[in-house]
This record gives sequence, structure tokens and C-alpha cells, in this order.
Amino acid sequence: MSRKIEVCLTPALLGLYDLKNSIVVVIDILRATSSMVYGIDNGATAIIPVAQVEDCLAYAEHGYLLAAERNGEVVAGYNFGNSPFSYSAEHVAGKTVVLTTTNGTKALHMARATAQQVVIGSFLNLQALCDWLKEQSQDVLLLCAGWKDSANLEDTLFAGAVVKALRSEFVAFDDSSVIAEDLYGLAQHDLGAYMNKSSHSHRLAALNIGEDVKFCLQLNICQAIPVLVGDALVPLKKN
Amino acid sequence: MSRKIEVCLTPALLGLYDLKNSIVVVIDILRATSSMVYGIDNGATAIIPVAQVEDCLAYAEHGYLLAAERNGEVVAGYNFGNSPFSYSAEHVAGKTVVLTTTNGTKALHMARATAQQVVIGSFLNLQALCDWLKEQSQDVLLLCAGWKDSANLEDTLFAGAVVKALRSEFVAFDDSSVIAEDLYGLAQHDLGAYMNKSSHSHRLAALNIGEDVKFCLQLNICQAIPVLVGDALVPLKKN
Repeated sequence: MSRKIEVCLTPALLGLYDLKNSIVVVIDILRATSSMVYGIDNGATAIIPVAQVEDCLAYAEHGYLLAAERNGEVVAGYNFGNSPFSYSAEHVAGKTVVLTTTNGTKALHMARATAQQVVIGSFLNLQALCDWLKEQSQDVLLLCAGWKDSANLEDTLFAGAVVKALRSEFVAFDDSSVIAEDLYGLAQHDLGAYMNKSSHSHRLAALNIGEDVKFCLQLNICQAIPVLVGDALVPLKKN
Repeated sequence: MSRKIEVCLTPALLGLYDLKNSIVVVIDILRATSSMVYGIDNGATAIIPVAQVEDCLAYAEHGYLLAAERNGEVVAGYNFGNSPFSYSAEHVAGKTVVLTTTNGTKALHMARATAQQVVIGSFLNLQALCDWLKEQSQDVLLLCAGWKDSANLEDTLFAGAVVKALRSEFVAFDDSSVIAEDLYGLAQHDLGAYMNKSSHSHRLAALNIGEDVKFCLQLNICQAIPVLVGDALVPLKKN
């Protein structure tokens, strides 16, 4: 058997891959998939990602928690924004959260259309995710949500971390996975410092989310792997 | 002035960029843009890139040299294939060559549609290209031809070499340029060894073009910069 792992650097390239027998890992480190992992790990029943703030409203009558931000501020009338700190057990245990995210939702919806299974990755659950992926037999596509269809540093770095952890488990790699793995090798000793190279560092600083970024770059503080079932992310039941 | 340099990792992402005031550098290291640079440097009057072997035939009556390969073999009736060794002064000086290339031609034609100016880059003319780019005022997009719309190692490495050489000349960089630059930093001391990591190394070996690859990874043996004028690449007249 020749198991294959590949990295799709942006959702704009997803059409190049045949995913009907593949597991797709969706990656949007700042901050969507980090918040998803942290929320599910903290006992959220489900997290429903939607693309537009307005889409949240359709869920209001179900008594779900609504998370929406515009320009770094919680939208009036919503329960909280996109900071992973909002996804603590105190806030989300036993609850369903509807989360607005642009890049992450787009990637999730595209993957859902063709993949056999869609799971969520972040540095927070890196080890748990890799341990689980090792036990599967399907090919794996690491799908970076990127930034407006361009590649970004943080999602590429995480994809590289997974490739590095799983190299001995796979036989076939694409060039993007080689690029991502070697980039992670350069950055892994101080991810935070490396992230200062990002073209988005000014944008991130302007959003005043430095603490969020630091939080999202922590390794292995969560065991949960969110898996997409219908429209909702729920905890993967590991065998 | 805030001059910007960006890296487009595959032609499939070219639509993300506004190029009307930009110089686009087309990069297809193995082997199209290396052969183009070497041919123009060796005195070819012009090189006309076309997508299909059949497209060459339209040019036959003009007395042009026709270069076409299928599966690594020169097509019967054509003058030579895509090896850069065919573009020596002995073969091409004073001649017009029609060259078949799939990834490279696609990238060139896409760039031509929107860019202010399109030039050709390869390791062979790295320094000359960077020296010239330094003297211009436009933004620069480094367009990797890639492999069937996916990123590849060699084109990304060359883009990184240009970013590294020009870092002090530019103010704005996208994340792809950071990725490419750091990858080149890792690989530059032995590009040939690094290329063994490529997912295409088996494909390249099967084509029996090891000598071509070695040739294409040489730095700064050419001074010429091919520039696209209409359908043809001709020598750029430097000021």
C-alpha cells in the first residue's frame, strides 16, 4: 500500500485533488480551527461554522450560542467573538455554538463536497490528530484555509508539522508537503518569533489579538478532534 | 514609495493579483525558462513559446527552428527537443526558435493578458535579472509555472532566490515570498541535493534528464533577460 499525504496551500487549489477516498484536515490556525478544537475539547456539543454574520441569525431560535466578529469587535447581540478564550468549558460545555468565519468556512464547505471525511486540525491538537491519522488507511490532504485564497504562513507551518510527524507513515508526498515540512523545521523552535515574518503581522497587531495568536501556537493542549457531520463539527469518536 | 514583491506559487492563483502596473517574472526552471534564457543569451533572435506540439507546425513555413518533445524524445521532423543543451550558440544564434512547453506557456500567456511587462527568470540569469529589477520602480510578481497547477520545488526555490536577493529593495512581501525565501535559504548550499526531495524526482529520472537538471541549477552563467513582446521572447534592452 502506498499511502499519500499532500498539502493544498489554499482552497483555490482544492479542485486539483481527488478526495473521494481521502481524509481532509482543514487548517485555519488564526483563529477558526484553533477555536473549534478548543471548544470541542471543552465539551461543546457541536460547533456549526457559517460564512456570514447574517447566517448566524437563522440559528438564533434554537438557543445556540452565536459567535460573530466584525473588525475585531463582538457584533452587538451576539454571545461572543472568535477568540479561542471564548471557547472555555465555562462558556461552551454542553452547548452548540454557531461560529462565523470566512476563510475557514469556505475551506470546510469545499472539502465537505468531495472528501470521504473532514476533520479539524490546529497546533492545540497536533499530536492527537497525528496519532489518529496514523491509525487510518486513507490518503490525507492537509487543506490550508489561507488568507483570501493566498497561502499564509501559519496554516502552511501547521501542515508542515503534520507532515513531519507522519513522514514515516506515508510513501508519497507532493512538493507542497516538502515545502511545508521544511518550513516547519525552520520555525518550530520558536513559532511565535517566526510568525513575526508574516505579511499579516501588521493586520494581526491591528486586531489586537496578540494573546489569541500566542494561544493558537501552543502545542498539544487538546485531545479532541472535531469531525464534520452534516453541517456541524462534533467530537470524533476514536476507536 | 512602498514597492511590493509577491510570489504566485502556481498559475491557478494568478487571478488573485492586480498586475496592470507590475513586472511579472515567469519561472519554469525545468526546463522551459532555463532553455529560453540560455537561447536568448546565445544570440537567438527570438523564442516563441507555444502550448501544443501541433502549434509549432504553423510556424514551419517561416524557416524557424522547431523544438518539440513527447515523453522525452524529440518529435520526428522537429529540429530539437527541450534540453537547454540544444540552445547553444551553434544551434540558435541568429535564429528564431518555436518552443513547445505546457506549464511554461500557460503561465506566460496568462501573465501577458494582465501584466505591464513579462520577463523570463532562471537560475542561469538570476543576478542579471535581480540587478535589472532593482533599477525598476514597479511592483514585481514572481510567477511559478509549477506542475499541472500545483506548486513545485524548483520554481519556488528560484522565486525565493530572487526575494532573498532583492529583500532590501522592497517594503512589502506576501507570505508566499517569505516561504519561498526561507526555503531557498535551506537549499542554496546544494540545490542539486535539495532537488532530490522533489516529488518529481522519479519523473525527472525516468525522463533521463539528469544532465539537464544539473545545467538548469547553475547560477549566473547568462546575462540575457528575455522579455515578451507580442508572442515572442526577445532580448531585453537594458538602460
